[in-house]
Amino acid sequence: MTGLRLDEIVARLGGALQGDGSQTVCRVATLARADADAIAFLANPRYREQLANTQAAAVILAPAAAGNCPTACIVTNDPYTYYARVAQWLHPAPSSTPGIHASAVVESSLPASVSVAAGACIGRNVRLGEHVQIGAGCVIGDDVEIGEGSLLHAHVTIYANCLVGRRAVIHAGVVIGADGFGFAREKDAALGPGGGRWLKIPQIGRVVIGDDVEIGANTTIDRGALDDTVIEEGVKLDNQIQVAHNVHIGAHTALAGCVGIAGSARIGRNCTIGGAAMILGHLEIADGVHVSTNTLVTKSITKAGAYTGWIPFQEHAQWARNFARLRTLDAMNDRIRGLEALEARLSALEKNS
Amino acid sequence: MTGLRLDEIVARLGGALQGDGSQTVCRVATLARADADAIAFLANPRYREQLANTQAAAVILAPAAAGNCPTACIVTNDPYTYYARVAQWLHPAPSSTPGIHASAVVESSLPASVSVAAGACIGRNVRLGEHVQIGAGCVIGDDVEIGEGSLLHAHVTIYANCLVGRRAVIHAGVVIGADGFGFAREKDAALGPGGGRWLKIPQIGRVVIGDDVEIGANTTIDRGALDDTVIEEGVKLDNQIQVAHNVHIGAHTALAGCVGIAGSARIGRNCTIGGAAMILGHLEIADGVHVSTNTLVTKSITKAGAYTGWIPFQEHAQWARNFARLRTLDAMNDRIRGLEALEARLSALEKNS
Amino acid sequence: MTGLRLDEIVARLGGALQGDGSQTVCRVATLARADADAIAFLANPRYREQLANTQAAAVILAPAAAGNCPTACIVTNDPYTYYARVAQWLHPAPSSTPGIHASAVVESSLPASVSVAAGACIGRNVRLGEHVQIGAGCVIGDDVEIGEGSLLHAHVTIYANCLVGRRAVIHAGVVIGADGFGFAREKDAALGPGGGRWLKIPQIGRVVIGDDVEIGANTTIDRGALDDTVIEEGVKLDNQIQVAHNVHIGAHTALAGCVGIAGSARIGRNCTIGGAAMILGHLEIADGVHVSTNTLVTKSITKAGAYTGWIPFQEHAQWARNFARLRTLDAMNDRIRGLEALEARLSALEKNS
Repeated sequence: MTGLRLDEIVARLGGALQGDGSQTVCRVATLARADADAIAFLANPRYREQLANTQAAAVILAPAAAGNCPTACIVTNDPYTYYARVAQWLHPAPSSTPGIHASAVVESSLPASVSVAAGACIGRNVRLGEHVQIGAGCVIGDDVEIGEGSLLHAHVTIYANCLVGRRAVIHAGVVIGADGFGFAREKDAALGPGGGRWLKIPQIGRVVIGDDVEIGANTTIDRGALDDTVIEEGVKLDNQIQVAHNVHIGAHTALAGCVGIAGSARIGRNCTIGGAAMILGHLEIADGVHVSTNTLVTKSITKAGAYTGWIPFQEHAQWARNFARLRTLDAMNDRIRGLEALEARLSALEKNS
Repeated sequence: MTGLRLDEIVARLGGALQGDGSQTVCRVATLARADADAIAFLANPRYREQLANTQAAAVILAPAAAGNCPTACIVTNDPYTYYARVAQWLHPAPSSTPGIHASAVVESSLPASVSVAAGACIGRNVRLGEHVQIGAGCVIGDDVEIGEGSLLHAHVTIYANCLVGRRAVIHAGVVIGADGFGFAREKDAALGPGGGRWLKIPQIGRVVIGDDVEIGANTTIDRGALDDTVIEEGVKLDNQIQVAHNVHIGAHTALAGCVGIAGSARIGRNCTIGGAAMILGHLEIADGVHVSTNTLVTKSITKAGAYTGWIPFQEHAQWARNFARLRTLDAMNDRIRGLEALEARLSALEKNS
Repeated sequence: MTGLRLDEIVARLGGALQGDGSQTVCRVATLARADADAIAFLANPRYREQLANTQAAAVILAPAAAGNCPTACIVTNDPYTYYARVAQWLHPAPSSTPGIHASAVVESSLPASVSVAAGACIGRNVRLGEHVQIGAGCVIGDDVEIGEGSLLHAHVTIYANCLVGRRAVIHAGVVIGADGFGFAREKDAALGPGGGRWLKIPQIGRVVIGDDVEIGANTTIDRGALDDTVIEEGVKLDNQIQVAHNVHIGAHTALAGCVGIAGSARIGRNCTIGGAAMILGHLEIADGVHVSTNTLVTKSITKAGAYTGWIPFQEHAQWARNFARLRTLDAMNDRIRGLEALEARLSALEKNS
């Protein structure tokens, strides 16, 4: 890395340069930790006070902050997005050398630009696009297709027949295309009151993933029961997410860690789903909805907006007093409704007095 | 797949045939997407209107819907279970060719009917039943036993000494038999107020899994601390579930995705546990209990029934107004109790007026 | 295992022996299941009644219970910690024979005392301490360092540049160092109202893990965005936990299963976090805090203590009545505030009557 000149950055990405355009930067860093080779950014006002003392070579910031910058700076209306582009330029994703490791087991014919790391297993009739990178120990089932430029880290499992678009980034431990949780209950009184056996429903749909999707470590996406599970283009999934069979996630929606989505839920485009939110099955969420962290969505949401349902925490003793009342909230409400009768009686007395 | 004749299906599975028994079907499909080679089903009334326009060759449905069916149909009291059996017949689980891949590392002697895929590692003294299928990259510890007909997908890890029954289906990324979370705290004031080090408790129990159990992708089941963790026959576990040490799950119970069960909890037979429900440790849940999604079970449940504890979501602003009150619910309750004194005073006035 | 004499145990670990010091024990067991070769313990009063009928050779217990013990016993003030030490002595963790399996792919030079199991892949410039054990199928990225005596079970993935301390125990399926969930939203009206594309922020920090850390199966710890994600010494993480980028967890803190911690949260030392608790990002939790199970922490906690925010479950019908009220809690509160006016009017009437 020989670095980038500030005027070179502004020439490509825009923004207004303030200071010496021949200044060179080699990496991005936080305001607090940047040194003379680094470019920092100020996007969150809570870090404003760190600006005065930064040792960075340059800072990316908004017009309002430009007056206070002790160093060279690039002024732009959206410093965070600008920083993302500079960071991508200075820190390109490392790419593997094309080729198939001797220990990989490959039963399909692959383009020469593809890399397959040690111990990976690639089934029959797999179609990989140019420059696809398959990490160590990945297992790719028969008839899978993965678009050009996609990167699978180690230990990704893709079951047979699934499709992944172009430029995907899939992290370690992800499982795509395992059977959905589909069973029919066959009652059998011999198994006790209400007893029954679960008959497996074959899961014959696929998972179909669009372009530019990123999937975090150990996330699971089940194949469809009959039709497909669909993840549209530009969707970003964090770690430890569970996506059940026949879910449909619209383009450019992002889900934070630990989210669960039950079968056949349909989530719109441009949504954001907070961490550990749960979405019940067979419902629909409109475009542009924000579901807060820890919120359980139990019915369809038909218009854009923010929706929330978590409970505030307290010191344990206070919480215990307040939450015992939750169990009798309906009775509290009944007593409050008695207020109206009381008020009527009071008014009658007032009239007479 | 050459297909099945409808009269062939009815001869084996029962039900009443309406229409041409020589009609052939090759696959199952939804009412909306079925074509002339497919058999569909109608179990959920919400899809009733799709019946009129279906292109299916035949439909499986209940007596009440048979009059409206535009195609051949099989009439049965439980269309969903019937559909499950037809689907299993038309779409049998693919099975691997017996044999051990050259890249697998096998230190035990295995039946000839077993298949072991590329890169799998099988330890010493492992006993596999007939027709067991071990997926690519699975790691099976020493002294593990797996019953006949079980199928392990890719990247399943089973630690030493665990037992799995017959006909198991275990999905990618499952970990069976990792150490339970057992530590004794050794206080040490040198580590700060309330400080202490955690001493590991060796986890010497096993995981013992009965017949006909299915386990979803990336689910984890810890080995027992002293006694065993037990999953009885017919249990179905979805993806991303955590089962702690010494849990006992009764036969034919099903757990949806993202559930967590803490140590030594004992769950009855024929229960259903909704997604993301959490069950605390050292408690007991009776047979036939249904725990709703997102519900935290904090004490034993001694009789069958449905139990719930989630909170309704709202638009964010409404939620914020309502949930701020949760923090003062106990005070609200005190004020309501003041109503009785008020009412007494009012009655006294009324008497005097 | 030839067993340990009770006097040998007391000589090394302290405590007062009651009974025959030449008695030999070969394993630990529960009071209920122990046989004549086993040593049991009594720490939880709920098991006190099992003491009378135990078949154990000896029992570890507190002074208050010593009078009722029908067998030899070791009396100590902290029976659980004592039991932990005896169990570690009787059941040492199995260790692999040093050496590199022929099927492993190793691109670094390793100490002779290290063991690397079948199919493991170790990148370039990896530094392993003495006696490190790498399980089957592990994937260790370039420039990783792992301290002496650490044990990685099967299928652990460590991305490039991460550091793990000494004596770590890392269970199957753990992913350390995957990219944090960092994206900048670039608005684009062409993608619909509120639409935008997510630009990936390169994640160039590391994960840095101290000594004596244990990490449960399928837990994920993301690398830092710019600075590092840090897990201090003695921290214990259970299964299925998600630790986001730039989180900092203080020494000797323990997290139960299914916990999620959002980006840049800072958790103190000697904390315990209950199962499925969620900690929002960019906040700070003091030393010595206990967060209850299922609790969402939405703001910083500045002093030690217990904090809680879960909701009680009920039979479904009762719950439905009470929780419908949650949606109108603010209105209930307004009506209660009307009580004051009512009371004033009543007082006025009383004065006049």
